[in-house]
Amino acid sequence: VTIDADLLAILVCPLTRTPLRREGDELIADAAGLAYPIREGVPVLVVEKARRLPILPRQGEVAAEG
Amino acid sequence: VTIDADLLAILVCPLTRTPLRREGDELIADAAGLAYPIREGVPVLVVEKARRLPILPRQGEVAAEG
Repeated sequence: VTIDADLLAILVCPLTRTPLRREGDELIADAAGLAYPIREGVPVLVVEKARRLPILPRQGEVAAEG
Repeated sequence: VTIDADLLAILVCPLTRTPLRREGDELIADAAGLAYPIREGVPVLVVEKARRLPILPRQGEVAAEG
């Protein structure tokens, strides 16, 4: 059933309204720099429960010198 | 990316731990008879926020007589 495939496509980060992607048992909001947990099959899209992602240089981006 | 397709497959109803299916902007837990809302892209898997589904006779089942 292909309708199931769009679930992630319609979900957004409640803080920034940007798309989510799944990584293991987390839903990652890249734009917000937050990872929301999926706890025993239940996604918890609550900002207070999210893990703050470490800030990494984007691909192709060079760390500022000096 | 096929990993996205399994999101619904790993989600469960928080009350009954049974699978969910999406119908429009709701996540239906047939075993629990509950429909959880997806509010502006955010699934709310909270029993208190769920809609109770009307009880319908299952396919092939006949209403009791008498």
